[in-house]
Amino acid sequence: MSVGTLHCVGMGPGDPELLTLKAVRLLATTPVIAFFAKRGRAGHAHGIAQAHMNPDAEQLRFEYPYTTELHVEDPRYEASILAFYEASAATLATRLTAGCDVALLCEGDPFFYGSAMYLFDRLAGAFPSEVTPGITGMSGCWAQARMPMAHGDDILTVLPGTLDQASLAARLAASDASVIMKVGSNLPKIRAALALAGLAERAMYVERGTMAGSRMVRLAELPDEPAPYFSLVLVAGRQRPR
Amino acid sequence: MSVGTLHCVGMGPGDPELLTLKAVRLLATTPVIAFFAKRGRAGHAHGIAQAHMNPDAEQLRFEYPYTTELHVEDPRYEASILAFYEASAATLATRLTAGCDVALLCEGDPFFYGSAMYLFDRLAGAFPSEVTPGITGMSGCWAQARMPMAHGDDILTVLPGTLDQASLAARLAASDASVIMKVGSNLPKIRAALALAGLAERAMYVERGTMAGSRMVRLAELPDEPAPYFSLVLVAGRQRPR
Repeated sequence: MSVGTLHCVGMGPGDPELLTLKAVRLLATTPVIAFFAKRGRAGHAHGIAQAHMNPDAEQLRFEYPYTTELHVEDPRYEASILAFYEASAATLATRLTAGCDVALLCEGDPFFYGSAMYLFDRLAGAFPSEVTPGITGMSGCWAQARMPMAHGDDILTVLPGTLDQASLAARLAASDASVIMKVGSNLPKIRAALALAGLAERAMYVERGTMAGSRMVRLAELPDEPAPYFSLVLVAGRQRPR
Repeated sequence: MSVGTLHCVGMGPGDPELLTLKAVRLLATTPVIAFFAKRGRAGHAHGIAQAHMNPDAEQLRFEYPYTTELHVEDPRYEASILAFYEASAATLATRLTAGCDVALLCEGDPFFYGSAMYLFDRLAGAFPSEVTPGITGMSGCWAQARMPMAHGDDILTVLPGTLDQASLAARLAASDASVIMKVGSNLPKIRAALALAGLAERAMYVERGTMAGSRMVRLAELPDEPAPYFSLVLVAGRQRPR
């Protein structure tokens, strides 16, 4: 008996109409559908996929062991998340070994900061695998904000908001266009770094781009409150170079 | 009479199955469909869209004035391309003024190095506009290469191959993950910059990702020949950090 194929499938930025035809086909035809979810939540990827899922498919819900209870640098967090990825990969391996194809759903694009990579990294050596790209959260946000991001020879940098303030400022100053992810509680630091780089007036804050309840505002006008998970800061590149 | 809406619609990286449901809906229902094409070619965006286009839609084909006959720094090139964008925007303005919605097709994502931005920049002040994001060419390439690109707190930098060798090397060395666009005739310089940054062994060359005739090879194994338009070089970020 031949083994199944692991499909890592991008679900796009949130609007279910931004699913690709290929993702819709895989949702309708794959016998095992796996996805991550935060504790006590239905799962964002599942929510995007729901209307297109094969009702007879087995659903595997992998619930993250911690959300905000432990700090990411706490060794217990690291041990716990490692065990979680190992156990999730082992579960998928049983289905693949049994000859079932698996669709592992992933918000945005699977290979762009996606959790699906942690299972792909563990399984792709042992099973056939395929990747269906998805629209990234950042594309969803700049589309929603109607902000042309990068023209011509612009350099675009994607930065985590977890960087220290000086590094963030230096990298922002050296780039034409920037995307800052992991905004969360880093907003005051991000704001200070943008000011140091002379970019405070150009930065736009976008929350839940393409989803219900989305919001965008110039960062300069936003109060310093913790930002939700689906938020980022955009600095567009050179404006209308032609 | 109300004016029409300009829709900038991403066509994704090349595989028509990577169109979004929203793009397919707009292709089927918009009365005017506009796209760019190189001289003597049908147009890549048009090729991706073709099977889904409303057969009764007016098709507006905007043919680039030059491809490789003039160097981009030749003032005649600049004047010619400016006039081309002005004329194309004026054509769309007539349809929008008449109350027709227009779908302006764009390879990849419209706001990520897309030509559609040059028309959006000219028209969005005068007409309602919307942007439908698309899967970028780079996502298509790393999916095809099955290369997990960016994990966790990786910094990802998108660089034009037109940068000088020293700048390219410095930026590659300072980034966890990199995408080099505009490979074309810059391949020997890109290779040298990667070697200076100590990344020669990690770079992957991907051509026509997700399209027919796609090809991927470690850059170290690729001869120094001019690369086609749809090619890029990928350096993946930190490998399996968890």
